[in-house]
Amino acid sequence: MGVTDPGAERHARHSMILVPLDTPGVTVQRSTSVFGYDDAAHGGHGEITFASVRVPADNLIGEPGSGFAIAQARLGPGRIHHCMRAIGMGERALELMTSRVLERTAFGQPLARQGVIREWIAESRLALDQARLLVLKTAWLIDHGGTKDAASEIAAIKVAAPRAASYVIDRAIQAYGGAGVSADTPLAAMWAAVRTLHLADGPDEVHLRSVARLELGRARERLRG
Amino acid sequence: MGVTDPGAERHARHSMILVPLDTPGVTVQRSTSVFGYDDAAHGGHGEITFASVRVPADNLIGEPGSGFAIAQARLGPGRIHHCMRAIGMGERALELMTSRVLERTAFGQPLARQGVIREWIAESRLALDQARLLVLKTAWLIDHGGTKDAASEIAAIKVAAPRAASYVIDRAIQAYGGAGVSADTPLAAMWAAVRTLHLADGPDEVHLRSVARLELGRARERLRG
Amino acid sequence: MGVTDPGAERHARHSMILVPLDTPGVTVQRSTSVFGYDDAAHGGHGEITFASVRVPADNLIGEPGSGFAIAQARLGPGRIHHCMRAIGMGERALELMTSRVLERTAFGQPLARQGVIREWIAESRLALDQARLLVLKTAWLIDHGGTKDAASEIAAIKVAAPRAASYVIDRAIQAYGGAGVSADTPLAAMWAAVRTLHLADGPDEVHLRSVARLELGRARERLRG
Amino acid sequence: MGVTDPGAERHARHSMILVPLDTPGVTVQRSTSVFGYDDAAHGGHGEITFASVRVPADNLIGEPGSGFAIAQARLGPGRIHHCMRAIGMGERALELMTSRVLERTAFGQPLARQGVIREWIAESRLALDQARLLVLKTAWLIDHGGTKDAASEIAAIKVAAPRAASYVIDRAIQAYGGAGVSADTPLAAMWAAVRTLHLADGPDEVHLRSVARLELGRARERLRG
Repeated sequence: MGVTDPGAERHARHSMILVPLDTPGVTVQRSTSVFGYDDAAHGGHGEITFASVRVPADNLIGEPGSGFAIAQARLGPGRIHHCMRAIGMGERALELMTSRVLERTAFGQPLARQGVIREWIAESRLALDQARLLVLKTAWLIDHGGTKDAASEIAAIKVAAPRAASYVIDRAIQAYGGAGVSADTPLAAMWAAVRTLHLADGPDEVHLRSVARLELGRARERLRG
Repeated sequence: MGVTDPGAERHARHSMILVPLDTPGVTVQRSTSVFGYDDAAHGGHGEITFASVRVPADNLIGEPGSGFAIAQARLGPGRIHHCMRAIGMGERALELMTSRVLERTAFGQPLARQGVIREWIAESRLALDQARLLVLKTAWLIDHGGTKDAASEIAAIKVAAPRAASYVIDRAIQAYGGAGVSADTPLAAMWAAVRTLHLADGPDEVHLRSVARLELGRARERLRG
Repeated sequence: MGVTDPGAERHARHSMILVPLDTPGVTVQRSTSVFGYDDAAHGGHGEITFASVRVPADNLIGEPGSGFAIAQARLGPGRIHHCMRAIGMGERALELMTSRVLERTAFGQPLARQGVIREWIAESRLALDQARLLVLKTAWLIDHGGTKDAASEIAAIKVAAPRAASYVIDRAIQAYGGAGVSADTPLAAMWAAVRTLHLADGPDEVHLRSVARLELGRARERLRG
Repeated sequence: MGVTDPGAERHARHSMILVPLDTPGVTVQRSTSVFGYDDAAHGGHGEITFASVRVPADNLIGEPGSGFAIAQARLGPGRIHHCMRAIGMGERALELMTSRVLERTAFGQPLARQGVIREWIAESRLALDQARLLVLKTAWLIDHGGTKDAASEIAAIKVAAPRAASYVIDRAIQAYGGAGVSADTPLAAMWAAVRTLHLADGPDEVHLRSVARLELGRARERLRG
């Protein structure tokens, strides 16, 4: 995605265009990492330079100047997809945590007998169920009224679902001890993946600002009567 | 409610019986308070003594020995009722908070322009919407499968809904400053009412234990295959 | 304290003057409350009108125009005093909590055997000890360099000490159940008193802003080299 | 460290002995990782097998059966060392965060102007200063009365210092966005290192149990009068 018409109206300056990686002038300067992991889960993020790169006009996606609109159109579905995956990772972490604490003994009894660990399990269930229901409601809103009607909810789940998953995975790691932070369980890698969701497609703080802005807009209408 | 057959099977020992307050032998020793408020919202809690009190047999509710069953039967609906009221109080507090921050100026701009306060508003919306959806799901489960099928969710909302409301009301109080803790807004009284919900019908910790017990039960079945 | 010279330099406009309550023209319109309590602990806060009130010139505290300076001078000591009282209330609440859980039995064992409650006790000890040490350091800084050298710490403890106390008192209330929110223990009244400390002499958020401003000031100096 | 006298009194069963890595029979089966990092910071943790390994008697550390005592003796100093490093990492993360937010612009102003980010900075300063003072007090107690007198504080800082550092580093990561989770800043690696401190030398939960046990012990004495 790049600026193709700097003088155009603000939302019509960008276009999206497909550039095959082997096009002359494209150089992957370096790949990046996420908490020590090779950042390859989505094909990876890298630092890429484009020097006098040329591609056929057919490679343009949609109309010239439609880049911003295309990006916006996928944000709702893209974000809900991130959230569904976060919930899934959270559920898997809760399964791993319950398995661990039923099997592992410390101080003469299974970890599952410890009140503090039971609280983690209960809080995990609360966090996941509440986040899931908000994701489902958001999906329903998108299906019935489009992303515009679901603007507040899309922003809300982008914070709530990774937060729920981060909590559950972190507690599962704690229940596993050293195995939790190592590669002996999938938990550490899941944690790193979910940590990036607090930043990807906008950091949590930007989404919370959006929720607040929409809430204050409704409040202003209410006050006006 | 009292023990009418101490030798009966454990869940058949109690009966419920209506005792008019003016029956001879009934003495209200004292009323109680909740954070300085007269505890009268539900008709109040008091310390009451019963000395050789006699009422007609017709005053018995249901069968002798059915006290426990009657109490259990109302727990699901009673708890969801507490939760619906908590959500309602939370929504009212969020309305009060947004009104306040749009109207009140500090450091040369409306409080609504402060990022920290916007975050409270957004977090309030997240907390209330997630808790409400879990309450609605629980109500649906009770309607379709009865309280038994909804045991985990009833316990979960009993923690989640008062928690959401407590958060929102507390932040609304903070936005109002001195007016928030006084009788100039309904917030302080609402806060006290919701604080009791973390204890009424069982403290949060007992409900979290129940959620964990049910989750671990499912985990054991899963591990058995 | 009132404006005595509106045209003076910004910090020289106010004066402080003693006005006996029985001076003609002084009317206490109403007293206020804190949660359900009469707000009388400090002599109370009220809405007071002054209509053509006259007092002798001798009633002036200090010089004309020194009101702001007098107010500032007492803020450091005043705040640390609030914090010391908060720590004291927190310690008393922790004593009450440990007494309660050693004596009260539920589910066939003293509450003190519950892991979750042990965690409250430990977290209370951590919160109080850390807050106390920061209060002590702040007092040392005031003694050795004056309130100016301790500006960041005074702001920090004004948040940290009430926060620690609020946590401990709230968990003690939870350990006592219904008795905790009633007048049967001093906990509910203590909680209300400490809640006002999150607002008195400036809300937590203003103090946190001050800490951040000073930290960013040091960071700017560091970056300048 | 290994069991050298299974029949001895419980605390006299173990001995510590130096085993050079190139001794015949010693095989490093595999190294481990921490999140995606090679676990080499301390020389690494690995799975090592010992098959009929023999070393000279001179390699014994201290007396036979003194393994437990040696391990205990280093726990206090070892834990405080972990905590001092955690505080240091937290301070470095706060420096990085303040530098970042002063230099990085978003929504037309430096991030340092955002109220939410200022709150992170202030909370970071509160967390680090409080944890540092508790570490310093603990060191003083160890110097003056030995590890036994400081048992509660050693356990407390083992939770408080990594917790403070984890918070600060996490918020610094959030302020850096994608650069925060990558290898472009030291933050991600620091975060992983501090995450292990919530487990190393005993998980947080075990230390909190110790603090609670000691607090309840003092409470029992108080109640006995």
